[in-house]
Amino acid sequence: MSLAPHLRSVVEEIAYEMRQRSDRGTVARYIPELARVDPQGFGLVVIDADGTIAAAGDSETPFSIQSVSKVFTLTLALGMVGDALWKRVGREPSGSPFNSIVQLEREQGVPRNPFINAGAIAVTDVILSGHQPREALGEILRFMQALANDPTIAIDEAVAASEKRTGFRNVALANYMKSFGVVENPVDYTLGVYFHHCAISMSCRQLATAGRFLAHSGRNPATGLSVIPPERARRINAVMLTCGHYDGSGEFAYRVGLPGKSGVGGGILAIAPGRASIAVWSPGLDESGNSHLGRIALESLTKRMGWSIFGA
Amino acid sequence: MSLAPHLRSVVEEIAYEMRQRSDRGTVARYIPELARVDPQGFGLVVIDADGTIAAAGDSETPFSIQSVSKVFTLTLALGMVGDALWKRVGREPSGSPFNSIVQLEREQGVPRNPFINAGAIAVTDVILSGHQPREALGEILRFMQALANDPTIAIDEAVAASEKRTGFRNVALANYMKSFGVVENPVDYTLGVYFHHCAISMSCRQLATAGRFLAHSGRNPATGLSVIPPERARRINAVMLTCGHYDGSGEFAYRVGLPGKSGVGGGILAIAPGRASIAVWSPGLDESGNSHLGRIALESLTKRMGWSIFGA
Amino acid sequence: MSLAPHLRSVVEEIAYEMRQRSDRGTVARYIPELARVDPQGFGLVVIDADGTIAAAGDSETPFSIQSVSKVFTLTLALGMVGDALWKRVGREPSGSPFNSIVQLEREQGVPRNPFINAGAIAVTDVILSGHQPREALGEILRFMQALANDPTIAIDEAVAASEKRTGFRNVALANYMKSFGVVENPVDYTLGVYFHHCAISMSCRQLATAGRFLAHSGRNPATGLSVIPPERARRINAVMLTCGHYDGSGEFAYRVGLPGKSGVGGGILAIAPGRASIAVWSPGLDESGNSHLGRIALESLTKRMGWSIFGA
Amino acid sequence: MSLAPHLRSVVEEIAYEMRQRSDRGTVARYIPELARVDPQGFGLVVIDADGTIAAAGDSETPFSIQSVSKVFTLTLALGMVGDALWKRVGREPSGSPFNSIVQLEREQGVPRNPFINAGAIAVTDVILSGHQPREALGEILRFMQALANDPTIAIDEAVAASEKRTGFRNVALANYMKSFGVVENPVDYTLGVYFHHCAISMSCRQLATAGRFLAHSGRNPATGLSVIPPERARRINAVMLTCGHYDGSGEFAYRVGLPGKSGVGGGILAIAPGRASIAVWSPGLDESGNSHLGRIALESLTKRMGWSIFGA
Repeated sequence: MSLAPHLRSVVEEIAYEMRQRSDRGTVARYIPELARVDPQGFGLVVIDADGTIAAAGDSETPFSIQSVSKVFTLTLALGMVGDALWKRVGREPSGSPFNSIVQLEREQGVPRNPFINAGAIAVTDVILSGHQPREALGEILRFMQALANDPTIAIDEAVAASEKRTGFRNVALANYMKSFGVVENPVDYTLGVYFHHCAISMSCRQLATAGRFLAHSGRNPATGLSVIPPERARRINAVMLTCGHYDGSGEFAYRVGLPGKSGVGGGILAIAPGRASIAVWSPGLDESGNSHLGRIALESLTKRMGWSIFGA
Repeated sequence: MSLAPHLRSVVEEIAYEMRQRSDRGTVARYIPELARVDPQGFGLVVIDADGTIAAAGDSETPFSIQSVSKVFTLTLALGMVGDALWKRVGREPSGSPFNSIVQLEREQGVPRNPFINAGAIAVTDVILSGHQPREALGEILRFMQALANDPTIAIDEAVAASEKRTGFRNVALANYMKSFGVVENPVDYTLGVYFHHCAISMSCRQLATAGRFLAHSGRNPATGLSVIPPERARRINAVMLTCGHYDGSGEFAYRVGLPGKSGVGGGILAIAPGRASIAVWSPGLDESGNSHLGRIALESLTKRMGWSIFGA
Repeated sequence: MSLAPHLRSVVEEIAYEMRQRSDRGTVARYIPELARVDPQGFGLVVIDADGTIAAAGDSETPFSIQSVSKVFTLTLALGMVGDALWKRVGREPSGSPFNSIVQLEREQGVPRNPFINAGAIAVTDVILSGHQPREALGEILRFMQALANDPTIAIDEAVAASEKRTGFRNVALANYMKSFGVVENPVDYTLGVYFHHCAISMSCRQLATAGRFLAHSGRNPATGLSVIPPERARRINAVMLTCGHYDGSGEFAYRVGLPGKSGVGGGILAIAPGRASIAVWSPGLDESGNSHLGRIALESLTKRMGWSIFGA
Repeated sequence: MSLAPHLRSVVEEIAYEMRQRSDRGTVARYIPELARVDPQGFGLVVIDADGTIAAAGDSETPFSIQSVSKVFTLTLALGMVGDALWKRVGREPSGSPFNSIVQLEREQGVPRNPFINAGAIAVTDVILSGHQPREALGEILRFMQALANDPTIAIDEAVAASEKRTGFRNVALANYMKSFGVVENPVDYTLGVYFHHCAISMSCRQLATAGRFLAHSGRNPATGLSVIPPERARRINAVMLTCGHYDGSGEFAYRVGLPGKSGVGGGILAIAPGRASIAVWSPGLDESGNSHLGRIALESLTKRMGWSIFGA
């Protein structure tokens, strides 16, 4: 018997409940373009193993995926250099905010994991290696389009330009790593690609589609094609669980119980291994910089569906 | 069809492979009693949902469970004060070694999670509250005996005394928290209970038995009795996954893919939710202070059994 | 022509001005006995090279010298072990509050200087070495009495006991250093001596008298006897200047321009090399834990007398 | 009776002794242009209150003054904005290496003092304010030329360009402060001026001449003109003493006993208030990044001349 009707009603109920709530967190202000987003937005899309799509709210509205892109650049970089990537970046939770520079000094420029800003910049530097920024960025974008099966996915140049104008702390992080040789390309090149891949715009539907390979052993159920080996999919999920929500990763694991990756644009991609790929979006953030309603919606979803990886 | 024969042969193969390996890590030296343990020891016990026990190696040899006890004191303390516990201790990974004091200064004496030493001392202080050390310790011990269904489980007084004589850093941590009011009882009382519950001796068989409630929604399948509600079991598993192996928690999640808690005595309790409770022991430790062969054995086990919580 | 009349009128004017001020800082609360002191107290004593004593305000009122004692224990310890002392403690400013434990972790238990709490505990441990606490304490007390030429100087046992009951952070620091082997004696012994020498009670007159050897190349002008070689006096003065006021040392040098050492009892000993020994007391503290009016009075004194070591 | 003959023979003896020594420290390698300097160079110039010049060794050889320039930019910035400067930078010792970024995170982008790199960049930003980089740099250079009474003093463009190409950590520091608003001008402008004023080339004779106002209450004895008020000269000397040698400031105060400022080019400017302005140069550095022989020569000089500010 199909779970589809149950899943659809759960998704709709959650979207309804979220619309009623007045606590919406705070929209990220550090990039002007993000600060202009309507805090009332909420979208939720779940795609199960059979390809059933349960969607509710603003499921087709594109938003800036920001750090959610780091899941895909990590996937790409592992495909390029394999485990050699782990010489350039660790895979331990950081115990610090997303843009902390303290840890870099303690550990000689090697970021603790690929999901804090420093780590994601190092991963971007690996993807860039030996290419022009334009080529590297094209590769990332085509990868996203292929996974989402949608060639219209694009970069919001205004967001990228805004981040470039105001992202002083990321410039600091990149130059700091450069001083240790952890960033190898010219800093401007690496940051150019980084700012642009963070500025990719996607809807919940596109994002949930793009994440399906992580829920299904590295294989895209829609095409039947293997994107990455099963072991790599498990491992990316593991890094998402321990590091995907900055200094709120423990909290997310505790409450939601799924691997996930958030972005300051308010999006979260969450993976229920073997079961579903989930994208949620609501632009208001909590103190750790993760979508406030997004996290609450996911907590409700895993509870009602019994999808926590930590037990029924 | 029962998985039991397959599981048994997998467990035996792993134990055989571990016996062949010459890389055994380093036995903890900081307590003289632990330093005397034979580095060749290796035990592995898996108990599945049906109660099938697959055991290999030194599965009946008692060892000092040390920090593995923190899973059980966390369970007890949550039973006593519920979510109020989280005012005294956080649940985020620490990004630091197990005995770091730096984070305590930054966060006003509140430890980041219940599994680093400072956090476990704070949890012990909660259990102690309003009781004599002897009573609190008795309660912890009886809880362990009940879970393991074995009234012979006991504390190794020589280990406890040794730790008391040499555990200056733990004394420092406890007094530091006391200076912030996070430890409420007399420091000697709290540390007395802490050193003693870390000195509980158990075999892999006893430990795997005691951990079953975490694999089965808080219910002990042997007795059918509920130890804790299902949601609490999931949450304890989540904290184990993100924080259970100190600054090697990310690595353990990445390689093993199960919630687990290690101790410097060389034991690890790992939980495959819905499937099995697993105890492994090998006294040689890796750089992060976790059992070297224990981790490798668990990695092999989850791979062969397909038990990773991060996907097939 | 004697400067004495000018000095006396300057000292009286300053005491008068200080009495008028309503900003008095905050009396230290962390020890109950210190918290009971009247915040209106103010004393100032200057003894110049000729032995002229200019005194004003509560110059005969005994107060708890607290960390000012660290100047004298440093002098004693250097007399006992010479430059070997610097293997146990550094002589760099700390850049942290007086009771910070962070630096100890970074530098393997070796405190940055002898005037932060950790460093002073390490110095006390050196003095204690091979003796009973009672003997070591007797030696410190007799040294103070001899320097002040006053055998009535005594320890306030109530303050010592109070500090012992509440000094959890110092217990933490000492045990932390013990874990690195930097504290060699039993922690209780070392801390017992430390808490007691901090609890010595002295008046401004006694303290200024005791400090004269530091102003005069290590020689006590009253007796003509050499206490320490000239070079050592210079060096102790240098450590006072760079480290004598915790994380307000730069500020004190900038404003006052004299080597000095403060205590949370509100006392400050300041040295005008070749010119005068100065003791000031006012129990209200500023944010860095240094006497608020004491510092202002000293700033006024050096300005009017032209005594800054940094130029006329 | 003039001290001149004695001073001259002391200076010559010290230069002779330094030439004999084989321990020369390590020439800074982080800028290629600095790494090429001959490690055998040694120059020493002392100018006393009467204008007597005692010079020995390579006293006319220009070297890159690097961080010694920070004394002069601090003087200029205080002249421009007065005590308002201290809102942008502190005046406490840092307790960290010269290029540490950790402290900036803890203190919201405000550097601890004007002599660590971050602080000097903030000071440069104040000087730059509202001007073109070329103008600001011209002002700094003319100030140096006027103080040294030598219009030939110039910037070594090769050093400036080299630093610009390789100074990633300074780029990181500046961008990090920019992210907190502590740097107000475009980062490239501020760093351009900073890299260039660090690349000023001067000989010991020129540097000692330029520093005379600090030894004589803010007045240049050669011209009789007041450069800054006496109080400001005292205060700059105080900051030099507590912060002038990075994490070796305590050591320098302890051994030399004079306010001083070092640069990685191997130069040190030291001030004996009321007595002399001193410049020493030897390119080999110690672990803290200060001239190895320079410090030893100054220690010998103050000892023989009895010039320590901490007593005869």
